[in-house]
Amino acid sequence: MYSFRNDYSEGAHPRILELLMSSNYEPNIGYGEDIHSDRAKEYIKRLIEREDADIHFIPGGTQTNMLVISSFLRPHQCVISADTGHINVHETGAIEATGHKVVAMPCKDGKLTPDIIKKALNHHSDEHMVQPKMVYISNCTELGTIYSKDELISIHEICKKNELLLFLDGARIGSALTCKTNDLNIKDIANLVDVFYIGGTKNGALLGEALIILNKDLKKDFRFLIKQRGALAAKGFVLGIQFEALFQDDLYFELAKHANEMAEILKSIIEETGYTFYAEPYTNQIFPIFPDTLLKKMEKEFVYEFIEKVDENNTAVRFVTSWATKVEAVEAVRAFLNKNK
Amino acid sequence: MYSFRNDYSEGAHPRILELLMSSNYEPNIGYGEDIHSDRAKEYIKRLIEREDADIHFIPGGTQTNMLVISSFLRPHQCVISADTGHINVHETGAIEATGHKVVAMPCKDGKLTPDIIKKALNHHSDEHMVQPKMVYISNCTELGTIYSKDELISIHEICKKNELLLFLDGARIGSALTCKTNDLNIKDIANLVDVFYIGGTKNGALLGEALIILNKDLKKDFRFLIKQRGALAAKGFVLGIQFEALFQDDLYFELAKHANEMAEILKSIIEETGYTFYAEPYTNQIFPIFPDTLLKKMEKEFVYEFIEKVDENNTAVRFVTSWATKVEAVEAVRAFLNKNK
Amino acid sequence: MYSFRNDYSEGAHPRILELLMSSNYEPNIGYGEDIHSDRAKEYIKRLIEREDADIHFIPGGTQTNMLVISSFLRPHQCVISADTGHINVHETGAIEATGHKVVAMPCKDGKLTPDIIKKALNHHSDEHMVQPKMVYISNCTELGTIYSKDELISIHEICKKNELLLFLDGARIGSALTCKTNDLNIKDIANLVDVFYIGGTKNGALLGEALIILNKDLKKDFRFLIKQRGALAAKGFVLGIQFEALFQDDLYFELAKHANEMAEILKSIIEETGYTFYAEPYTNQIFPIFPDTLLKKMEKEFVYEFIEKVDENNTAVRFVTSWATKVEAVEAVRAFLNKNK
Amino acid sequence: MYSFRNDYSEGAHPRILELLMSSNYEPNIGYGEDIHSDRAKEYIKRLIEREDADIHFIPGGTQTNMLVISSFLRPHQCVISADTGHINVHETGAIEATGHKVVAMPCKDGKLTPDIIKKALNHHSDEHMVQPKMVYISNCTELGTIYSKDELISIHEICKKNELLLFLDGARIGSALTCKTNDLNIKDIANLVDVFYIGGTKNGALLGEALIILNKDLKKDFRFLIKQRGALAAKGFVLGIQFEALFQDDLYFELAKHANEMAEILKSIIEETGYTFYAEPYTNQIFPIFPDTLLKKMEKEFVYEFIEKVDENNTAVRFVTSWATKVEAVEAVRAFLNKNK
Repeated sequence: MYSFRNDYSEGAHPRILELLMSSNYEPNIGYGEDIHSDRAKEYIKRLIEREDADIHFIPGGTQTNMLVISSFLRPHQCVISADTGHINVHETGAIEATGHKVVAMPCKDGKLTPDIIKKALNHHSDEHMVQPKMVYISNCTELGTIYSKDELISIHEICKKNELLLFLDGARIGSALTCKTNDLNIKDIANLVDVFYIGGTKNGALLGEALIILNKDLKKDFRFLIKQRGALAAKGFVLGIQFEALFQDDLYFELAKHANEMAEILKSIIEETGYTFYAEPYTNQIFPIFPDTLLKKMEKEFVYEFIEKVDENNTAVRFVTSWATKVEAVEAVRAFLNKNK
Repeated sequence: MYSFRNDYSEGAHPRILELLMSSNYEPNIGYGEDIHSDRAKEYIKRLIEREDADIHFIPGGTQTNMLVISSFLRPHQCVISADTGHINVHETGAIEATGHKVVAMPCKDGKLTPDIIKKALNHHSDEHMVQPKMVYISNCTELGTIYSKDELISIHEICKKNELLLFLDGARIGSALTCKTNDLNIKDIANLVDVFYIGGTKNGALLGEALIILNKDLKKDFRFLIKQRGALAAKGFVLGIQFEALFQDDLYFELAKHANEMAEILKSIIEETGYTFYAEPYTNQIFPIFPDTLLKKMEKEFVYEFIEKVDENNTAVRFVTSWATKVEAVEAVRAFLNKNK
Repeated sequence: MYSFRNDYSEGAHPRILELLMSSNYEPNIGYGEDIHSDRAKEYIKRLIEREDADIHFIPGGTQTNMLVISSFLRPHQCVISADTGHINVHETGAIEATGHKVVAMPCKDGKLTPDIIKKALNHHSDEHMVQPKMVYISNCTELGTIYSKDELISIHEICKKNELLLFLDGARIGSALTCKTNDLNIKDIANLVDVFYIGGTKNGALLGEALIILNKDLKKDFRFLIKQRGALAAKGFVLGIQFEALFQDDLYFELAKHANEMAEILKSIIEETGYTFYAEPYTNQIFPIFPDTLLKKMEKEFVYEFIEKVDENNTAVRFVTSWATKVEAVEAVRAFLNKNK
Repeated sequence: MYSFRNDYSEGAHPRILELLMSSNYEPNIGYGEDIHSDRAKEYIKRLIEREDADIHFIPGGTQTNMLVISSFLRPHQCVISADTGHINVHETGAIEATGHKVVAMPCKDGKLTPDIIKKALNHHSDEHMVQPKMVYISNCTELGTIYSKDELISIHEICKKNELLLFLDGARIGSALTCKTNDLNIKDIANLVDVFYIGGTKNGALLGEALIILNKDLKKDFRFLIKQRGALAAKGFVLGIQFEALFQDDLYFELAKHANEMAEILKSIIEETGYTFYAEPYTNQIFPIFPDTLLKKMEKEFVYEFIEKVDENNTAVRFVTSWATKVEAVEAVRAFLNKNK
């Protein structure tokens, strides 16, 4: 049985565990003010070439999203998101629970565009409606697609022009930045958004997201807000150590690249066998469409997620690869598909 | 330099790290529905002899407090707490941020009593005031004191009589239950409260609190609420594994007992040297009062926390021991005090 | 210049003002516990034939909506609404500000149906998504359309089956119940919904909505919740007096009927002149489509609201009649249209 | 039976009702953008000599408090109040329901002082605690006492120095400014606070408070926030008309003066008969202490409010006078006390 269920099934990359072990008896300062967190922040600042960035390590992704959105909006302001955006669909109303409407716009491939943002702005005309103040995008998106540099620049520009904050959810940013068709780098992102995060949980850490605030107007008192949302870990160094391990060299991107390569192979195998995709495959999440008769057999050998019936006889499913996916697992798919042609 | 700053300075007990390592490549189900979480829940249910309990592993303590309080109160209801209660003083208004007033009552030794609860009830007379619906206590308290069995029973009774939910914050419950003067056991607690938690972070885990819901009316839909507050860890098994290690045998209480024993020795040393305490010492947090002249020297060799100047020349400080405190550290205090008599 | 801008442009019906005057020096009890409020409640209970109803007079409509929704949902629960629903579009995120997502469903004519509700239910599958717990409908709707008795019964049934609360926004319920095609009466409504309100502001009162709670599980502590949302008027009798005047005889429905009759005439005039409607006209809000060239002249003689350009040369506008609309105003439209044929 | 229960028992001053009547059929613009609201704003701006002020008419007092506090604080910030402050005691947690802690400080006579504010500031030391950002005072206070000009200046100064916003609840500001010992005028207040309001409900209006924003940083988007909290009345002109009547000449202060004069006489009567007060009497709320035996008889002839038993045989009660209190009622107290000496 091989699992392609998601990219958060295994523990952590061994080098993270090693650093946790070797530092285990150090008496660290609590609440993220320790030396490991400091080092990890330095590595990341150097990587994005922004010494002025404020970096905070947050335990989870939903927590990071609600923290960012609720901290930077006034009560009457809303965030614009793709209708497939994680904050709109899969966070049990965490954003609304902090008081803010998510204005969800229908999108293709899970991606916002300047035109769609414009449409949302035009719709919100007066004080009887919420006021758009933030744009939320995910890269890669919830459908595994990515933003090109030109696309991100154009979103940045409409945001600047309309005084909208731009927030990029990077829960899977490693996968986005190491995929073959990508032309963005992490420095571009740091210069085009107001705030973004680098996801650890889905790329080899036990848990943790590195939240990076670039817009200086947003930095003030942020630790108060982290604490209030229950996101200031007493043993903050546990997060710091993991990002130290991921960014003291190129480990973070190596892990993401591996996940993408495994997905690439999967994609080729599936295409070669003649199947198509529900959404264009780019990163470590791919959405093949298989006949229901095939899936009946497949589910006995592989774990994956159901997405949607596309017609009477065919169903879209999701295969996710990760830093821990073995070539052996991918090859088992090839063998299976060949056997069941 | 020896640190008595707190009980969350070091990583995790080696047996926890070992289990994390040995299970690292298992493909676990996400969001706490894995086999390790299941096992840990079984161990805890057996320990408290309540097969009917609902158990959830939550990343942090403030998060657990705000989750519990906001899930079980209607909007107009409040929680009664000691004025020294963690939710009142040290959570940056996390409870109020979910919409609920903390009614903070002046208390001796950080402990609520039936009389104090009664006073709070009497004060809240009609619909122009919030409605008390929950009592929050910590055991051990924020001042290191503990509730006796009789005291907890009497609080349980006034709660039942007045339809108040009783919530016990057990961030340091290990220390409370293994201290020399304690006469409560964990089964008593499970039978006397509606909901409580067993803290991992301050007793040897990397992070995590085991939330235990006993009152069946409170169980419904609780995973929705965990998710909404950003507390449903994708790699929930990381929490499950830690509680598995802590409760598959007596490790949890051994660690707490060790911390208490170290505090006991410290207490004797301090008493023998003739100093007194700001709050009666019971558990792993003790609050000696030292002359400022002595503290001037002390701070060069030991790390501890400032609490309050008690008079012109003397100051109360906090020393905390933990599962990781070494006899050597405690003996260094003895040597220091003897040298500086 | 004749105004068809809305139905809340003038003060109050003279009989309301008279009762305010004649009772002006009575020393009333505050906060809605006065004799006028009591009488008004009695009149309404008799009208709906539900002596068991709990009735509260609330100053405003948005306030009533946010009060009802936030009082009856737990934090993880959401309300299903037509995408054109007032709570979704025109309340500046008031519902979200109390922590709840509005799940807005695309609808025809502003009306929810069992199929659409079913679709919303099916979409929300697990604890990663909000949980539908309430259905919000307006009668008449924001597009001036109404629910038939069969339609309301079918919505009631799907709600019962799925443990959804049914909440009817009756800001313009008078207009709905007195329109020519209506087959519902107010007793039907009281028996089919869990909670609804009878709007005063848009039907002849200075302000005020009569909120009626039928479901007994929702009644408890409701005055606490009113107070908390700032909706417990100190001079609650000002609201009570108005509803007393409106319901001590048939005044409320007479006023609504008059508004509808004025709209009926307008509708005939417009149809006769050959123009069509953006939404089928039923009640006191009608949405004619006029050529832009005509509107250029029209805006010099009449006040109305812009809705939407429907094509290059034509625009939908909104004309609203009220208890205060004079035949003279309606006839002026006829004269204008005839002159500008 | 004479009522001294409160100052919101009767309807409105006749001149307010007259203006409501005479303007009843005007087709006004909705949501406070009408000509009456404009005029009322002009009158108030002239009175306070601040043409730059932003003025909004809000239906209720609790609503105004929660609107102001929730609009101007970030999520982690709190408001400092006297423990007797209306927001702390009598608003059913309305402030906390918007997410903010009320830091309630023990005070004498219901009044904050710079020292008490300083104490609150010192207590809140770091990001584990809420951050004080606003000071809330009432004038007159909930105990009927008033701030002197020097006292208000000193509070203003500590606020400026510590970047705290100063918010004055003027639900009974008329009574404060027309009482005999007062040395503040309304221009002083406008120049010393960031935001305050002039209460209509308790001084002759049917309902309504005039909220006045002086600090220009607080003005932006305020109508969005009013709407979101359900406080943007559709018939906003009903509020505007009332404040127009109250401020087109000196009516507002005449009404307050009358109430104070009635209280003055009551005070003399009570003092002459030899009784004392629970709080020093200044304005239209006075708190005499009477023997329980006397109260037994008194309650058959007068309506007043119970405050607190002060010892075994005596009880403090509250007598409130208003614009509608007649000399006859006050003289009835004299007759009663003389008869029952």
